[in-house]
Amino acid sequence: MPAESSLDKMNPTQLEELFRRSLPLPSEIDPHFGASLRHVLENPGSLVRPRMVLQVALAYELEADRAMDLAIALEQFHTASLIFDDLPCMDDATHRRNAPCVHVAFGEPSAILSALALINRAYALTWRALAGSPPAAQPDAMAYLERLLGVEGLLNGQSLDLNYQSLPHTRETTERIAHGKTVSLIRLTLVLPAMLAAAPCSELRQLERIATFWGLAYQAVDDLKDVLQCVAESGKSAARDLLLGRPNLAAAIGVPDAVARLQRLIALGDRALARLLQVRPALAFLSDLRSSLQDELSRVTANACEMSLRAES
Amino acid sequence: MPAESSLDKMNPTQLEELFRRSLPLPSEIDPHFGASLRHVLENPGSLVRPRMVLQVALAYELEADRAMDLAIALEQFHTASLIFDDLPCMDDATHRRNAPCVHVAFGEPSAILSALALINRAYALTWRALAGSPPAAQPDAMAYLERLLGVEGLLNGQSLDLNYQSLPHTRETTERIAHGKTVSLIRLTLVLPAMLAAAPCSELRQLERIATFWGLAYQAVDDLKDVLQCVAESGKSAARDLLLGRPNLAAAIGVPDAVARLQRLIALGDRALARLLQVRPALAFLSDLRSSLQDELSRVTANACEMSLRAES
Repeated sequence: MPAESSLDKMNPTQLEELFRRSLPLPSEIDPHFGASLRHVLENPGSLVRPRMVLQVALAYELEADRAMDLAIALEQFHTASLIFDDLPCMDDATHRRNAPCVHVAFGEPSAILSALALINRAYALTWRALAGSPPAAQPDAMAYLERLLGVEGLLNGQSLDLNYQSLPHTRETTERIAHGKTVSLIRLTLVLPAMLAAAPCSELRQLERIATFWGLAYQAVDDLKDVLQCVAESGKSAARDLLLGRPNLAAAIGVPDAVARLQRLIALGDRALARLLQVRPALAFLSDLRSSLQDELSRVTANACEMSLRAES
Repeated sequence: MPAESSLDKMNPTQLEELFRRSLPLPSEIDPHFGASLRHVLENPGSLVRPRMVLQVALAYELEADRAMDLAIALEQFHTASLIFDDLPCMDDATHRRNAPCVHVAFGEPSAILSALALINRAYALTWRALAGSPPAAQPDAMAYLERLLGVEGLLNGQSLDLNYQSLPHTRETTERIAHGKTVSLIRLTLVLPAMLAAAPCSELRQLERIATFWGLAYQAVDDLKDVLQCVAESGKSAARDLLLGRPNLAAAIGVPDAVARLQRLIALGDRALARLLQVRPALAFLSDLRSSLQDELSRVTANACEMSLRAES
């Protein structure tokens, strides 16, 4: 971890550098494996999750080293889950983060081993971050991580996603999937740094609620964008066919109801946010995130209106 | 963990039962994912590693609950590595533990997600086992686990194995692969329970040496068996071709040299074992393991002699 490790001065380039150096490769590593891992480490994503971890950590005065360990660990878990999602047997993607997917560039075995290496490192870093908490608080934090990554969280979401075709195409199903795939990591991002800093239970509860509503809201935005783009490119009935097999809130309940649901989720988040900011004004950065969600909503609504006007004319 | 949890009374059936119940599945789990995980949990292997963990734990008087958590965790890591190894893009196996491989029975995505669920649970259980150690001892144990599972250990061994064709086919290469793939888990099995019980450094060092020599020896036995069986079934030159692409000590340096190497490894192990038993007689169970290694050596040597006699006649 860098010497200049004060969180409020950390700029995006430094965070990228931290991610790049987050998994030291030994000299005796198999050269092919090393190359595959360097490809992963040298193509970081937007790093939005680790930035949020650092901001929550600042608000709760968590030690900088522990905050950075946790921030990088959650980004590694996230990156590993994308590598698995992109495999031919899952989403069969070809590009990710402006580069070929790991399995495209280095083969499936190296992609799998690279993802596992990230996961191994991520548990070790999380452990290190956690070891600084009072012993009595550690089991809860560990259980929280296990629950949100495992059979009740991320992994279950991915499985439901893959088996969507055999499930009812409803709001409940698409949101259950979003709960597992999207909300789990956002919950870890917002709640775990506060937990490690021994935040009061009532604040953890509000952070939980915000993470849940916003996670579902971001997924709803993505789903709406996908549907609108698909309609714009291929027409309405083709879009319906194209999206039918994929879990998508807007495809399941229609664009107007999805927009209404998104508005409702933002309103629910607002309520939790207002309560939280009353007692913890240092979390003001969350208001910016909330604004960007509102901007997304406005764009999506404008798009949807324009499209329906065009369809009528 | 069971109430009747005293380690010396634990029989193989109880250990199987412990493995079966080691990953509680929530009721809301995706049914396909749940079925895949039940398939894994209901087909335990020989459980030789967790049995060894429990015996080391007994010798060092590690608390029963912590020993069982660690024993099951190491078996889960091992099982997960087998699920990945068996995938079509790796060894493309069809059967494992007298049952169809997970990817054969439930598809590749469910196999991958099941292995990840085991890994997630295994880190949580290891963590729980570790949390009972004095705080000062915990970072070393965690670093040891990270090193042996990660880019310096198991994962690197698997990568070297997959890329063996581009490496020199020598004793050094095959033993580097065995170090990663076989020795890593045996080291964790013998050393980690002793580490968690705060065993003296000198004893940990001898356990390290024993695990390394025996791990390499067991791999040499397996390699010799593979070569001898292959020769018996297909003749000598066909066997050479069949085994050329796979890391195999006996194929790389020939059967007589591989037997000599195996004898040397056993002798090196004996020296470490003798020293260790002087100070820790409670580890006497290791002598039985050593005898079974000697039996394997005798069988392999007898086979090799018989075969060379048959070739001469």
